Amino acid sequence: MVENATQRAAAKYNFSPGPAAIPQAVHEAIYADLKPGAAQRAIPVLEMGHRTADFADIMERSQACLRELLDIPANYHILFLAGGARAQYAMAPMNLAQSGEADYFDTGYWSQCAMREAGRFARVHSVAEVGGSPRTLPSASEWSASSQAKYVHYVDNETLTGFELPTNFAESLTRHAPQWTTIVSDMTSNLLTRRIDVSRYGMIYAAAQKNIGIAGLTVVIIREDLCRPRETSAARPSLYDYATLAQSRSLHNTPPIFPWYVAARVLEWTRAEGGVQAMEERSERRARLLYDLVDRSAIYFNDVDAPFRSRVNVSFRVEPAELQERFLAQARNEGLYGLRGHTAVGGVRVSLYNAVSDDGVAVLADFMREFERNA
Amino acid sequence: MVENATQRAAAKYNFSPGPAAIPQAVHEAIYADLKPGAAQRAIPVLEMGHRTADFADIMERSQACLRELLDIPANYHILFLAGGARAQYAMAPMNLAQSGEADYFDTGYWSQCAMREAGRFARVHSVAEVGGSPRTLPSASEWSASSQAKYVHYVDNETLTGFELPTNFAESLTRHAPQWTTIVSDMTSNLLTRRIDVSRYGMIYAAAQKNIGIAGLTVVIIREDLCRPRETSAARPSLYDYATLAQSRSLHNTPPIFPWYVAARVLEWTRAEGGVQAMEERSERRARLLYDLVDRSAIYFNDVDAPFRSRVNVSFRVEPAELQERFLAQARNEGLYGLRGHTAVGGVRVSLYNAVSDDGVAVLADFMREFERNA
Repeated sequence: MVENATQRAAAKYNFSPGPAAIPQAVHEAIYADLKPGAAQRAIPVLEMGHRTADFADIMERSQACLRELLDIPANYHILFLAGGARAQYAMAPMNLAQSGEADYFDTGYWSQCAMREAGRFARVHSVAEVGGSPRTLPSASEWSASSQAKYVHYVDNETLTGFELPTNFAESLTRHAPQWTTIVSDMTSNLLTRRIDVSRYGMIYAAAQKNIGIAGLTVVIIREDLCRPRETSAARPSLYDYATLAQSRSLHNTPPIFPWYVAARVLEWTRAEGGVQAMEERSERRARLLYDLVDRSAIYFNDVDAPFRSRVNVSFRVEPAELQERFLAQARNEGLYGLRGHTAVGGVRVSLYNAVSDDGVAVLADFMREFERNA
Repeated sequence: MVENATQRAAAKYNFSPGPAAIPQAVHEAIYADLKPGAAQRAIPVLEMGHRTADFADIMERSQACLRELLDIPANYHILFLAGGARAQYAMAPMNLAQSGEADYFDTGYWSQCAMREAGRFARVHSVAEVGGSPRTLPSASEWSASSQAKYVHYVDNETLTGFELPTNFAESLTRHAPQWTTIVSDMTSNLLTRRIDVSRYGMIYAAAQKNIGIAGLTVVIIREDLCRPRETSAARPSLYDYATLAQSRSLHNTPPIFPWYVAARVLEWTRAEGGVQAMEERSERRARLLYDLVDRSAIYFNDVDAPFRSRVNVSFRVEPAELQERFLAQARNEGLYGLRGHTAVGGVRVSLYNAVSDDGVAVLADFMREFERNA
């Protein structure tokens, strides 16, 4: 996976699955803020404390902006926490299931990571699974819901295989099993790329390094009643306790200040670009462009059923295999960066997060057409 | 604690207790790296993935540099983990005591935080305590060691009260109680400010935002035998498992890439400045300058016994209390930033971490003399 150190043509367009592209305007704003001696603040951004007026302003603005972007109801806390989504794989069962049962959809690699981690703290029940090279999700009549589930969990978009659940998925869950009153979703790779009805969820979480900023920060949107203090027999770290984190407004310890500052910039950029609706339209248009190209091609292949094709990770194989290696090498030489699929599944993966420019997608599409013509 | 937003005279010298000053040379290097379009790397620093050659280089260099700076033996792992030292307050007992007993020195605020957190996972035994306004540590004859302790823990420097343990403290522990074979120390505020003999410790940890970089990262130096996989009855999150973190070389999940990158820059700056020995000499000289000034003064007071006076957090009261408020306001107007003591203890606190310049300390000393003359 480690890229050859000598192979360092500058990337023109970053299609990495995450850590991923940052909007050009945000790069420029951060650069301006970091200028030594810049006097906008009492103290340089890199030295800013979490108890300062400058950071209080960043915390308030970022939370208000996210609340506005996703129309988050007042009875949901927004937490900005250190670390990645993997911590939530443990925190969800530790806090919400408490040695009881939890239902999980197994739609791929990250679902399975979440299930393995949850299995340390709860009885994990698999509702449905898609297998290694998923085309579709089993229909609802085949789902197995446990009667005692404290919550139901799914990964909204599986980045490795480019398998995304439909936008009305949470709605269909609520209809399916009345005991599924608490829906928990990992939206690390597609939060802020389409409109969602937050009120249908118990909790939504997303690591920042796809659509919110840089690594080292995870956003958690959680219904008030799920972070009330409660007695449990099993001990958990205070930083893994939603009640403690909500009460302290994410300041139980020193937060990841710079990643949070970047998130504030990216969230405000998202709003300035037209918000989540604009991102959704753009993401659908761009994914359609690439999938149409794949479907009309004789060398590019994607087997996922249309309703489950990811808008944010367009995956395809180039056949035969030698051609795929040539594709990846030529793309890299053209400055198209981050296209190699995860080692576990291979293939090509085009990550189309919000910060990827339309220009980049157009250049990639041209490259794909040209490559096929010359293949 | 939140500074008045209108009171924003630019800080000339940052004496904050952490998040704290960053060396000027590091500010400048980061600024150069973040220039949009800068071509040193395949991809901008803020977009750098953890599986890239550029980041592999940062990981290797930072670990090698820290190993060299502290002369860390080969049988110690160096981990770079997301989040702050508070996570270690849980991880130490979860991994090293495993529901057994652990001995703790209670030397102040952070010791007590560590003990409360450890109490969730182990039977915590207090060896000795210093009380709220500590002057000294009870002598060894008064220490109470438990026979079953899996490890003994101390906070090497208490930032709130400016109470630092002597440099030979670990050595004295080993002599005191033969069962104390595993010494665990929180060196968040003084790691890299004096030479230590790492081989005397089981584990040393330090959040980055004092002498290593910015918030969102903690460095853990841990003896190999303490992170071997073992069967335990109590479940813990995979990110709280030293064996998992050591095996994955801190890449069990996406690490805090930018904070790690900053740490690499700060560590290399530390080496370029003469390493830990130079930092130790500087820190002693600077602390002596301020304590001498306090001891000769009629308005500045510090009650800590000389052997326990912190070199990195010089705390004092200004009396009477009205004078102290005037001191803090005037200092702030002069661009001397971050001097107000923690709300829990009050007073003035001068944090002299490695990145604070000698110039800043000289200006502060002049200000203190001038203020006393005019008082």
